Order: sequence, then structure tokens, then C-alpha cells
Amino acid sequence: MAVNDREGLDARLASIEGHIKGIRKMVQDDTYCVDVIKQTFAVERALQKFESELLRGHLSTCVPTGFKQGKNDKMIEELSDLFTLARK
Amino acid sequence: MAVNDREGLDARLASIEGHIKGIRKMVQDDTYCVDVIKQTFAVERALQKFESELLRGHLSTCVPTGFKQGKNDKMIEELSDLFTLARK
Amino acid sequence: MAVNDREGLDARLASIEGHIKGIRKMVQDDTYCVDVIKQTFAVERALQKFESELLRGHLSTCVPTGFKQGKNDKMIEELSDLFTLARK
Amino acid sequence: MAVNDREGLDARLASIEGHIKGIRKMVQDDTYCVDVIKQTFAVERALQKFESELLRGHLSTCVPTGFKQGKNDKMIEELSDLFTLARK
Repeated sequence: MAVNDREGLDARLASIEGHIKGIRKMVQDDTYCVDVIKQTFAVERALQKFESELLRGHLSTCVPTGFKQGKNDKMIEELSDLFTLARK
Repeated sequence: MAVNDREGLDARLASIEGHIKGIRKMVQDDTYCVDVIKQTFAVERALQKFESELLRGHLSTCVPTGFKQGKNDKMIEELSDLFTLARK
Repeated sequence: MAVNDREGLDARLASIEGHIKGIRKMVQDDTYCVDVIKQTFAVERALQKFESELLRGHLSTCVPTGFKQGKNDKMIEELSDLFTLARK
Repeated sequence: MAVNDREGLDARLASIEGHIKGIRKMVQDDTYCVDVIKQTFAVERALQKFESELLRGHLSTCVPTGFKQGKNDKMIEELSDLFTLARK
């Protein structure tokens, strides 16, 4: 992982953790279901932004290094898997 | 929200919160990006199960009640919105 | 299916069919992969709009009728399934 | 595009085109909405398999070549974009 991103990535996750805590409170307070689901959708979008940032770092650092070191098959396999999993 | 589901729903969210904490630890420990992304994918799938359960409760209780009370437009609008948001 | 929507729904599908034909041409012409994938993403978005429109019709007509006829379980089961499938 | 894949990719698209034609017939025959939506979901899954195959070819051929030619920024930008678009 590109070390200089670590703090920003943790800040995103800390915000997501706080969001989940807020949704737990909504459930305990019997908030209307539709409003709760809209909040979990928002958490998913935040996770996707986190993943996009992480992947960009991976593509910029690990992938070109991996290709230089002849680890093409490993790099290709991993990225194919991520792309397929991203659609599920 | 159907009161009898509240505890099970909170248990799901508590588990998701713990999962996020674990991913923060992975980021702080410079875990390989691909392994981190696979964990956030797992969190998204857990959120989707939570949403499916919540929606099932909504369809079983709020929606038929809403139709009986003549709130058809509100029920239809909300479900259409949720379905559209679910695809994004 | 609400009959008055039939023509508009078919027009959407006709456009999607034409789009697929265009993508086949791109593949035969050895178009750059990234440009091809962007076009299939566009087809998926068009399919999702079609589904949203169809679901809105379903929620406005079949669902309230189903509830009036006491087919609650069937209506709830189908909508839960669609919502879950929509996430995959 | 890797030329040896072209025929298999076209066969996938031909099958998708036929599937769309079948769904148009369903709409014209006033098939129950839920059954129609399940078929368009199946088309989306088929498109996603097509995209996974195309992306695997891209990762195996264009991407390592691009890195060797020093086109890192272009390759990274494109893959990041595809990954982000894949989530929408």
C-alpha cells in the first residue's frame, strides 16, 4: 500500500464506522425502514469511493512493479478477480 | 420497523462495524491492497443482506398497511426509488 | 403488464438491440477493448432504466391489486427476490 | 483486442442479441412484469461475463505492452475509470 495514502484511507474508514454507528442508533430508535436503507446505500457508496482510491494506488505502484518483476500472471489474475467481484 | 426484528438487525450491524474496525487495522498494517479491497467487498455484501432483510420487513408490514390506508402513491414512489438506488 | 406502456417499453428494447448490434460491429472491427466495455456499460444502464420503468408499472398496478386479492405472500416474495437479484 | 478471442466474443453478443429479441416478444405478449425483469437481469449477467472476458484480454495484452511503452498514466487512468464505472 502506498504509505502516503494511509492516513486519508483511514479517515474514510473512520467516517464509515461512524456512519454505521449512526445507523445502529436509527434501528434502535425504530426509524422508518426506507430511511434506514437509504443510509446503508450511502455507506456502500462511501466504501466504493474507498475502493476506487485504493485501486488507483494499486494500479500506480504494485501493478507496474509487478510487471517489471515478471509477475504478470499474478497481477492479471488479481485484477480480473477484483473486476468480477466488483460486479456482484 | 417490525419490532421483533430489531435485535437481529442490530447484530448484523454490530458485526459490520467490527469488520470495518478490522479493515482499519489492515490499512494501518500496510496490508496488500488487493486483500483490503476483498474485505470491503465482503462488507458490502453484508450490508446488502441487511438491506434485503429490512426490505422484506417493510414489504410485509408497512407496504400492505400503507395500501390499506390509501397511501399508494407514497408506497410506490418509495419502492421505485429504493429499487433505482439499489442499482447505482 | 400495464398495456399503455407496452409501446414505450418496446422502443427502449429496440434501442438496446440496436446498441448490441453496434457493439458486435465494434468487436468485428477490433475496436480498443476499453471503448467496447464502456459501450456494454451503457447498455446495462439502459436495461436498468427499462427495469425501473417496468417495476414502477408493477408497483402501480399488479401489487395493489394483489394485496386487495389477498395475495400478499406472493407479492412480498416476488418483490424481495427482485430486490435481492438487483444487487447481484 | 486479442484477435483469437474475436469469434467467442461475437458469439456471446449474438446470444445476448437473441435474448433481447425474446424479451421484446415477452413484452408484446403482455408477459407478467416480474418474469420480464428476471430476463433482463439475466442479460445483464451475460453482459458482465462478456466484460470480464474482454477485460482479461486487455490485462493480458494491452496493459503489459502499454507499461513497456511507458504509457503508464494512460493504462492506470483507463483501468481506474472502468473499475469506477463498473460499480455504477
